[in-house]
Amino acid sequence: MKIAVTGKGGVGKTTISGMLARLLAAEGHRVLAIDADPDANLASALGISEAEFRKITPIAKMKEEAEKRTEASGSGSYFILNPKVDDLPEKYCLEHAGVRLLSMGTVEQGGTGCVCPEHTLVRRLMKHLLIERDDVVIMDMEAGIEHLGRGTAESVDALIIVVEPGRRSVQTAEQIKRLAGDIGIKNTFVVGSKIRDEADGRFITGALQDIELLGLVSLSDVVREADLKGVSPFDIGGDVVDEIRSIKDTLFAKVAGAS
Amino acid sequence: MKIAVTGKGGVGKTTISGMLARLLAAEGHRVLAIDADPDANLASALGISEAEFRKITPIAKMKEEAEKRTEASGSGSYFILNPKVDDLPEKYCLEHAGVRLLSMGTVEQGGTGCVCPEHTLVRRLMKHLLIERDDVVIMDMEAGIEHLGRGTAESVDALIIVVEPGRRSVQTAEQIKRLAGDIGIKNTFVVGSKIRDEADGRFITGALQDIELLGLVSLSDVVREADLKGVSPFDIGGDVVDEIRSIKDTLFAKVAGAS
Repeated sequence: MKIAVTGKGGVGKTTISGMLARLLAAEGHRVLAIDADPDANLASALGISEAEFRKITPIAKMKEEAEKRTEASGSGSYFILNPKVDDLPEKYCLEHAGVRLLSMGTVEQGGTGCVCPEHTLVRRLMKHLLIERDDVVIMDMEAGIEHLGRGTAESVDALIIVVEPGRRSVQTAEQIKRLAGDIGIKNTFVVGSKIRDEADGRFITGALQDIELLGLVSLSDVVREADLKGVSPFDIGGDVVDEIRSIKDTLFAKVAGAS
Repeated sequence: MKIAVTGKGGVGKTTISGMLARLLAAEGHRVLAIDADPDANLASALGISEAEFRKITPIAKMKEEAEKRTEASGSGSYFILNPKVDDLPEKYCLEHAGVRLLSMGTVEQGGTGCVCPEHTLVRRLMKHLLIERDDVVIMDMEAGIEHLGRGTAESVDALIIVVEPGRRSVQTAEQIKRLAGDIGIKNTFVVGSKIRDEADGRFITGALQDIELLGLVSLSDVVREADLKGVSPFDIGGDVVDEIRSIKDTLFAKVAGAS
């Protein structure tokens, strides 16, 4: 299954992506996590240190190298070979607790341009990557909606929109749902995040009745503690891991049912 | 003074931009606010309703119309005329409580491309807009760092990086500071946001010693209440307005001192 996680900035996309990836790997799935946000730190949410993360080459560099090796000149030709997860060259991948991590790349220097070429590469990789029945690819998207203009996630099997209790977060979710429809994404779901009490839960379910809800994740000191310690909340454990497990079960039941 | 407000997603950029704009207008400045985030809602932080906001034309459409009118063919020629704030055509501006609001534009349809052309227009507008001594332009940037690759804010007099207590928000701030230096922005400042207690304040000042601090904004129910009601926190008032006033005073003292 190919999954993308999206939503307004700061709602908890990266934390939820990282926990889902770690949980699925712990349950025996082969998991590829893709950090598709030039400003995110999926590595840290997976429990990988900053220093380890800096060792891998962003896939933005894959294109030039693939072209050199294959002497192909068209862009993206590497991905048209339909690589499997195991075929991805090791220098682009970091493995931690059963999760392989790829990074899209970031803005290295101010004034040097947008990250459109990086998005094009990620879109092609997602499209052409061959996965087996139990493989899972989880892509943590950049904040906001521009990636939907770019169609970066157009070939995913499920798009998870993370929403926190608040009007602006809900507005973003509604816009994402509409734009995702434009690029042909069939399975769009909501996960409520930073839920403090029952009223927050009711706010989310009431505000987003048109999008299927996978579940709610409580506002938890575990997440804050993990961020400050630089570990994955999955390693600390507690209720929040149970909430993620329930969301994962619901997702798999719904997407398997839909296909 | 031309100001851009930036930072990781969800830290409070839009709220702080909106309150600064309203405060400056209340003090007699002529204020132009620019919503440069395809996923933000600066209008709502200024106290403008969704319905009112939909009436204005995003400046992305200004280019075609300007070209039609002037029969110029080069892109951006309109801005090279160095318009003043008052010259901006009314259909692109919404005025509320003394603040004129411009919108960059958003992604109208999934799969139709990036917002690079919109960023180019905003960059040119910021560069060529002529302002008088007491005029203030406040631009609310998109979450993250891509706008620094694009150089959208290259001609501002001050860049305010909003930071919440948390490692990832601090990492983004450090990266922004470096990238802002690349595009020649001289005055970069930090504002701490969502501060719950003294420990949070110490975390911000300790983590970002290399960037000048303008002040701290407390985590406040006023902001949450304003978001749910669709008004500006400035209209509700309270301590948070005093904190914004102090930040504004420090900013003006530092930038006036530096120029």
